[in-house]
Amino acid sequence: MADRLLDKIDQPRDLKPLTHEELSRVAQEARDTIISVITERGGHLASNLGVVELTLALHRAFDSPTDRIVWDTTNQMYTHKLVTGRRDEFKDIRLEGGLSGFGEPSESEHDTLAAGHAGTGLSIALGIAQGSANRRLNSWTIAVVGDGAMTSGSSFEALNNIVHLNPEKFIVVLNDNGMSISENIGFLTNWRKRMITHPEYQPMVDRMKALSRRVPTGGLMYNLVKRFNTALDGFVIPTMFWSEMGFQYLGPVDGHDFRQLEQTLRQAQNTTGLVPLVHVVTHKGHGYEPAEDDPVKFHQPSSPLGDGSGAPTYSHVFSQTVSRIMREDENVVGISAAMLEGTGLASVRQEFPDRIFDVGIAEQHAVSMAAGMASNGLKPFVSIYSTFLQRAFDQIVHDVCLQNLPVTVIADRAGIVGEDGKTHHGAFDISYIRCLPNVVLAAPKDENELQHLVYTAYKHAGPFAIRIARGAAVGVPLDEELRELPIGRGEVVREGGDVVIFGLGKSLNAALEAADQLADYGISCGVVDPIFVKPLDEELILDAANKAGRIVTVEENVLAGGFGSAVIEALAAAGKEDAAVLRIGMPDSFIEHGTAADQRRQLQLDAEGITQQILGEFFPDAGLSSIASRRDWGKAV
Amino acid sequence: MADRLLDKIDQPRDLKPLTHEELSRVAQEARDTIISVITERGGHLASNLGVVELTLALHRAFDSPTDRIVWDTTNQMYTHKLVTGRRDEFKDIRLEGGLSGFGEPSESEHDTLAAGHAGTGLSIALGIAQGSANRRLNSWTIAVVGDGAMTSGSSFEALNNIVHLNPEKFIVVLNDNGMSISENIGFLTNWRKRMITHPEYQPMVDRMKALSRRVPTGGLMYNLVKRFNTALDGFVIPTMFWSEMGFQYLGPVDGHDFRQLEQTLRQAQNTTGLVPLVHVVTHKGHGYEPAEDDPVKFHQPSSPLGDGSGAPTYSHVFSQTVSRIMREDENVVGISAAMLEGTGLASVRQEFPDRIFDVGIAEQHAVSMAAGMASNGLKPFVSIYSTFLQRAFDQIVHDVCLQNLPVTVIADRAGIVGEDGKTHHGAFDISYIRCLPNVVLAAPKDENELQHLVYTAYKHAGPFAIRIARGAAVGVPLDEELRELPIGRGEVVREGGDVVIFGLGKSLNAALEAADQLADYGISCGVVDPIFVKPLDEELILDAANKAGRIVTVEENVLAGGFGSAVIEALAAAGKEDAAVLRIGMPDSFIEHGTAADQRRQLQLDAEGITQQILGEFFPDAGLSSIASRRDWGKAV
Repeated sequence: MADRLLDKIDQPRDLKPLTHEELSRVAQEARDTIISVITERGGHLASNLGVVELTLALHRAFDSPTDRIVWDTTNQMYTHKLVTGRRDEFKDIRLEGGLSGFGEPSESEHDTLAAGHAGTGLSIALGIAQGSANRRLNSWTIAVVGDGAMTSGSSFEALNNIVHLNPEKFIVVLNDNGMSISENIGFLTNWRKRMITHPEYQPMVDRMKALSRRVPTGGLMYNLVKRFNTALDGFVIPTMFWSEMGFQYLGPVDGHDFRQLEQTLRQAQNTTGLVPLVHVVTHKGHGYEPAEDDPVKFHQPSSPLGDGSGAPTYSHVFSQTVSRIMREDENVVGISAAMLEGTGLASVRQEFPDRIFDVGIAEQHAVSMAAGMASNGLKPFVSIYSTFLQRAFDQIVHDVCLQNLPVTVIADRAGIVGEDGKTHHGAFDISYIRCLPNVVLAAPKDENELQHLVYTAYKHAGPFAIRIARGAAVGVPLDEELRELPIGRGEVVREGGDVVIFGLGKSLNAALEAADQLADYGISCGVVDPIFVKPLDEELILDAANKAGRIVTVEENVLAGGFGSAVIEALAAAGKEDAAVLRIGMPDSFIEHGTAADQRRQLQLDAEGITQQILGEFFPDAGLSSIASRRDWGKAV
Repeated sequence: MADRLLDKIDQPRDLKPLTHEELSRVAQEARDTIISVITERGGHLASNLGVVELTLALHRAFDSPTDRIVWDTTNQMYTHKLVTGRRDEFKDIRLEGGLSGFGEPSESEHDTLAAGHAGTGLSIALGIAQGSANRRLNSWTIAVVGDGAMTSGSSFEALNNIVHLNPEKFIVVLNDNGMSISENIGFLTNWRKRMITHPEYQPMVDRMKALSRRVPTGGLMYNLVKRFNTALDGFVIPTMFWSEMGFQYLGPVDGHDFRQLEQTLRQAQNTTGLVPLVHVVTHKGHGYEPAEDDPVKFHQPSSPLGDGSGAPTYSHVFSQTVSRIMREDENVVGISAAMLEGTGLASVRQEFPDRIFDVGIAEQHAVSMAAGMASNGLKPFVSIYSTFLQRAFDQIVHDVCLQNLPVTVIADRAGIVGEDGKTHHGAFDISYIRCLPNVVLAAPKDENELQHLVYTAYKHAGPFAIRIARGAAVGVPLDEELRELPIGRGEVVREGGDVVIFGLGKSLNAALEAADQLADYGISCGVVDPIFVKPLDEELILDAANKAGRIVTVEENVLAGGFGSAVIEALAAAGKEDAAVLRIGMPDSFIEHGTAADQRRQLQLDAEGITQQILGEFFPDAGLSSIASRRDWGKAV
C-alpha cells in the first residue's frame, strides 16, 4: 500500500491542489479512519460517513478559519477534524483528554462553536455573519444544517430572520439525508414526494409535457412552456418552497460527487440578492454497508465501554412499564422527540403504533402537545433526554405546571453521561424543575422503584417528572404488581446514628457502598432513599437532623438549586440551623468527556469519593488527608 | 338607544339565529364594550378589536365547548369572554378577583388553556385533537393563530407535526393582521409582497396576462393559461406555500366580513384529505381609530394603575445606557424578541438602525444569534421579559454559558408584574440562571446601579445576566460617569446589629423601609444590597451571620433555588449552620392577576410584610401576632 494521502493534509488548504481522483482517495482514507476508530470507540458513525465529501468540498471552496463553517449539529465534524490538524489525535476521540466528539474551539481555530444540540446552527451562523458585516471583515459564513436539525423550531426562527436580514456572504447548506435521527417526519423531508403525487400537480405536469411536444420550437409559447415544463418536472417544488421563503435555491446536488458539489458551491459564492441555499443530498453511512443498511442503529453505535452488567437500562424499564399500563388504559400515550430508540419507546410503538408519537427534533412541541392531550382526557408520558428537555423549559412551566395538567415528563440521561461530554450531561434538571409550582419530581434508586414511580405518575392528577440515569439499572428483580408510591415519602434504607446520607436516584447505591466503607472506620452511617425531590419528605430530613445531626446529600445535578439545596431550604425553614449538611453533587462547571465511571470517580460521586468527602468533612481524624472539603464544592455556587 | 343585543347573548349558541345585520350590531356592541373598559383599565386593545367578527363567526360555525377553540395567544379572547357568559364581569377584567386578561378554564368551560406565551396554540390544539381522536369524540378542534405567533419556532414544530399526523376535524385559522407585535418580520408576513415583486415572477405574470388576451377562448391552452393567470395573480403564492407544507389552503378571507368568514369556515368543515388552513386577514384595532392608526402603542396601552412617580422605567434606563455605550463602541449591538417598545430598544434603533435587531417572537433564535455574534467580536445585549426568556433556556445554557461567550441577557419584567398575572410574572429566572456555570447574575436596587451594571456587563468577558423589575425605577439621580462594579461584591447600605436584610434588586427599598419600621421596635436592622446573585459575596454574608446571627433575604423570585437558597448554600458550605435565615420571596404557586402593589402586599413582599415576617420569626415578643412564619413560606418547596 502506498502512503496515505490523508497523512499529507495538515490543514484545509492542503486539499486545494488535489485532483478529484486524489480527493476521492482522501475521502476513502478518512472514511476508513472513521469506521475503524468509531466502531471500536463509539460515536456518531452514520452521520459522519454521510458528509465526508461535503466536508472536503467545503474546505476546498472556502478558506477556514477566515471563512467560518458552522455545523448543525457538530457531531458530524469527524472528517473536518481529520483535515484540520487533528488526524493523529483522532484515535482518542471521546476519551478523557482526547478530542471531543463535537466541535471544540479550544481544539482548533477551525471549529466555531461546541454545540451539541440540534437546531441552533443557523442562528449562530447568522450571528457570526452579522459580526463579520459589522466589523467589515471579508469572510464567508457557511451554515451546514441537517434535515433533522432543520425541523427544529429554533431553525425556523433563524430561517425567518435570515430572510429578513438577508446578510451578504452567507450560505446555507441543507444536508438532506432524507431522515432525521429516527425517521422522516413532517413536511421538510417529504415535500417532493407529496407534491409530485399531489392530485393537482401531476396532471398539470402531464399536460405541460404534452403541450411541449405540440408547440413549435422557438416562439414565445415554446419558451414559456419549456420553462414551466422544466420547472414543474421535479424542481419547481423545492425551488419554490425555498424561494418563497426568500432564499436562492441551488440544487439538489449529489453530496458524494465532488464535481457537482464544487460547481454548486461556486455558484453560491457568485449569487447576489438573496441568501443561497444549497440543497445537498447525502446518504447516512455512505461507504459502510452496515451503517447504510441501518443508519438508526449506527447513528451512534453503543459504546463498548458500558458496564455490561446485563441489567436492563432505565429507559428500557420505563418503556416496558408504560407499555404495560397502555395495555390496561387506552388513554395512555407516549411521546418522544426524535429519540424513539434511545428512550425505549420504539419497541412500544410496535405494539401501539397509534399511541406512540415521535414528533422529531421538536421538544417544545412535544411538551405542549402533551399538555393539549392531557387537557382532553389523555395521560401522556413524554420522554426526552434531560439535556434536550432544557429546550422545552417554558412549555413545562407554562403549558404543564401553570395549567396543572397530568403530563409525565421523563428526564432520561439525567446526571453524568460520559463520552458525549459537556453538551449532553443532564446536570440542571433538578434545579430547573424543582422551582416550578404544582410539579412532583422524583428519581428512582433502581429499576423496580422506577416502574412503581411510572405507575404513581400515571395515577397522579398533576404534573409529574421522573429523572432517570443513562445506562444499565441496578439489576434488581421487578415486582410483579405495579403499585403507587406515597408521594413525598422517602425511605430509610439503612439505619445509622452518626451521619445520614440521602442518596438520590442513581447515587443511592454509591451511598450504600460508602456506608459500608464508613463502617470500617467505626462510623455508623444511615442511608435514605429520598425518592422525591419535590415534595420533599421533610419529616425524614428533620428526623435525620435530630438523630444524627449530620446530613449528607448526594445527587448527579449541580449543587446550585439542586436536591441538597432543597434539603437545606427545608432545614432552614424548620429552624434546624444546627444540623450540619454536606452537599455532594456536580460542580459549578461543564464536565468534559470521558467514561462515566471515570467522571464519577473524579467528581467524587462514587462510593470512594463520597466516603472521602464525609470523612474529611465530619470525621477528619478517622479519615484520610487531603480530601476535598465542602468548602471547595460550595464555592462560587 | 335600543337595548343591546349583546345583552341577550348568554352563550355562544345564542349567536346562531342572528341575521348578519344583527351580528354586526353585536360586533359593534362588543367593540364598544372592549374600548370603554380597556382604555380605562389597560389590556390588549388592538388585537382584540381585530378579532371581534372572527370570534363571532367561529362561535356560529362551531359548537363550543364540544368543539374546542384554541387561541394563540389567549390575550385576544375578550369578545369570546363577552359571548360566553362573562359579559357582566367584563368590567373588572384584569383586576384582582375579576376576569383574567387571558384564557382561563377555571372561568369557563369555553376556555381551553390559560396560555399567555405565543406559539404553543397549534401544539396544544393538536394534542386536544389527538385526545378527541383517541377517545372517539365527535368534536372539532380549531386553532386560531396570529401571524406573530406563527413566526415562533414552536409553531413551526407544530405545523410540521400536524402535517405528519394529519388529524381529522382539525382546522388551523391563520389570523393574519400583517404584523407581529412590533412589526413585519421574516417571510410569513412578507411572502406576498416579496414574491409578487420577485424578478422572475412579475414578467411571468405579465406574459401570462398578455397571452391570455391572445389565446382564443375555450381551448386547452386557454384554460391552462387562464389557470396559471388566476393562480399567479396573487393567490398561487400562499396557496402553494401552505399546500407544499401539506395543508388545504383556504382564503384569504376578509376577517371583518361575516359572509366570507362563514362561507370559508363551512368550506373548511367539508374539506377532506388535508388539514384546512383558513387564512383570515384582519386589522388590528379595527373600528377604533386611535388603535388602527398606532396598533403598536395600542397593543397594550399602559395601565393607568401605574405608580406615576415620574421616575424612568428600568427598561428605559437600560436602553439609554446601552445606546450611550453604543456611541463609544461600534461592536455593541442590541437584540429584542418582538418587544422593541417594551424593552426600550425602539428609541435606540432610531439612532442605530443597523445595530438593533428585532427577531420577532423568536427568543431561542435571539439568544443563539447573540452567541454567534459574541463569538465573532460583537458585544450583544439581549433584552427579553423574564417570563419569555424561559423559552430560550437551553440556548442560554448551551450556546452562551457552555461556550462562555460575552452575551448579556436582560431579564426584563422580573418578579411581580401585576395585571398580566400568572402567565407573565418573572418568578423563576434566578433559579434557572443561577444553576448555570460561567454566568454572572445581578439585580440592581435602582436605576443608577442598573446603568453601572450594564457597563460592568459590557466590560465583562463572559455571560452576564441582569434582572430588572417592571415599571418605574426609584427616581435617584444618575451618575454622569459609567463605572465598573466589582463583580461578586455587595454593599452595606445600612448598618445594624440585630438582624441583616439582604434585599435583592427592587426589594432593597422595601427592606430599607422595613429597617426603619423595625427601629421603632428597638431592633437594629442592617440592610445589604447584594447586587450579585452569582457570584455571591460570601464574605459579606458570613460577616452578617457572625455579627447579627440573623439573616433575612428578600427577592421577587420563588424560594426554591432562589437568591435566599444561594445564601443558605453559602452558609452551609462555610459550616455556618448556627446563623438563622429567614427567606422571603414568591410562594410555590402561580400568582393570579391584580395590581402589583396589591400583590406585593398580599405576598408580604412590601415593607410592612417584611417587617411583620421578621418580627414573627425573630422577635415575636416585639411584634404583632398572627403573622406568617417562615415555616409556612418554606413548605413544600
